[in-house]
Amino acid sequence: MLTGAMTADRALGLRDDTGLTMADALASAGQDTEHFGADPEALARVGSFIELHVEQGRGLIDLDAPIAVASDIWPHGRWRIDLPGEANHAGSTRMQDRRDAMVSLADLVLAARDGALRHHCVATIGKIAIVPGGVNAIASHATAWLDSRGPHDLPVHALVDELQALVEDLGGQMAQESRTAPTPLDKALSARVRGVIAGLPLRPDHGAERRNAERTDDHENVPVLGSGAGHDAGILASAGIPTAMLFVRNPTGISHSPAEFAERADCHAGVEALAACLTDLAGSDGEA
Amino acid sequence: MLTGAMTADRALGLRDDTGLTMADALASAGQDTEHFGADPEALARVGSFIELHVEQGRGLIDLDAPIAVASDIWPHGRWRIDLPGEANHAGSTRMQDRRDAMVSLADLVLAARDGALRHHCVATIGKIAIVPGGVNAIASHATAWLDSRGPHDLPVHALVDELQALVEDLGGQMAQESRTAPTPLDKALSARVRGVIAGLPLRPDHGAERRNAERTDDHENVPVLGSGAGHDAGILASAGIPTAMLFVRNPTGISHSPAEFAERADCHAGVEALAACLTDLAGSDGEA
Repeated sequence: MLTGAMTADRALGLRDDTGLTMADALASAGQDTEHFGADPEALARVGSFIELHVEQGRGLIDLDAPIAVASDIWPHGRWRIDLPGEANHAGSTRMQDRRDAMVSLADLVLAARDGALRHHCVATIGKIAIVPGGVNAIASHATAWLDSRGPHDLPVHALVDELQALVEDLGGQMAQESRTAPTPLDKALSARVRGVIAGLPLRPDHGAERRNAERTDDHENVPVLGSGAGHDAGILASAGIPTAMLFVRNPTGISHSPAEFAERADCHAGVEALAACLTDLAGSDGEA
Repeated sequence: MLTGAMTADRALGLRDDTGLTMADALASAGQDTEHFGADPEALARVGSFIELHVEQGRGLIDLDAPIAVASDIWPHGRWRIDLPGEANHAGSTRMQDRRDAMVSLADLVLAARDGALRHHCVATIGKIAIVPGGVNAIASHATAWLDSRGPHDLPVHALVDELQALVEDLGGQMAQESRTAPTPLDKALSARVRGVIAGLPLRPDHGAERRNAERTDDHENVPVLGSGAGHDAGILASAGIPTAMLFVRNPTGISHSPAEFAERADCHAGVEALAACLTDLAGSDGEA
């Protein structure tokens, strides 16, 4: 909102399940909406931005470390894929005579998974629509939405090109609905954050006891991870604010689920690291 | 309704899209609903039943014939299949860490198709439900409904056993929701119908001109097809009425679609065959 990435009109026009707009909800709560929206002056007062977030994957489990610094927000795209079939009777139409959009959809789902594994990116089909959708009706149309992201644009492009060819073979169409370019975080600020973290006396209950023997003040020892998920940090970085990001270990890698979780000790490590970074940026001597 | 296969309570309680019940609709149209329901006396007055229906598959295209006699209504079952996944973030969860119910569903759809081809039956998954169903959410649950039918119970059982094993491998569950046993039509009546049709002077515009040279009065030359679709004839046959069924060629095999169609000449052949059979049953000399 501050940056203008989300416009005031769009935000104030959002509706909840009952149809109430954000504007009406704010007004009935006595909030002023007049100055809602982009605020370049306020933005200019932000010198640096550091976001602390639970990791949404399993990178820190593999690295056996409580915290990491983010390198960038991965590029991200969404595509709508329409696959045709031929409506027909489920009982009287021989298998070899069918053009079943559900079977084409199954081919697409498996190709997206196989392609993402080969190209080292991620691909998800989580939303689909089937027409007519009856138990005794061969599907005449299937729509699938593909979400694909990767550490760079290249693997995602390679996957999408493969799927585009498959969709054409199946007589369907594939259209990009949205695309977010890779968002690099600030290199200088991120290096400074890594340096601060490398110098921290992380306590054994931070889960880093096995690293202590080899720990140095070298910031190269502080793990760096790309972010497959979008974050506020990406919005501020895109608006030109020097931005960095810290991840706290997620012991299951599960996110966007009630099972999302972080150990208390790892949360403490994250908060202490953030406090140390802010103290460092504020020019103090490092006492939190 | 006459046979009691559908009860009066169930029929009269059916509602249209506006919520109006069949009972109210009949009453407002001045119809009596008091005597609605099974009527054994009326049923006992039905000596034979012959149904004429467009074929819902491509059997008569392959046989290059305008009409056929049905042998039986195939056994038919429906199963509900639940497949688990693990809710997770589409951007930050590596492919190898996922348990994606959509991928399990794709495996199931392709296994159902492959199995039906091998076992010479039909299998359709036309209705599915995905949870949570978001573009950026890995599916945590998928439900699919399987419709399977075949000329006998055996191929359907073989397919279902295979799919049951797959579903268990995927950590899911499979439960039968309904089953209709094979319904044989009346052998004596069907043989008589074939005999009547074999003796008919089918006109060239019936599309049977290529057969005329070899046509004899032998009823073995009249094609017989099983019915993958359910029909009124099956209800009456199950109620003990001697029942037969005629199919008219469907030039595309498409059914349950606006594209369902039969050529005028084939429709005439079907109507003339039905009239000749009814005349024969009524004891006349075969003049329609």
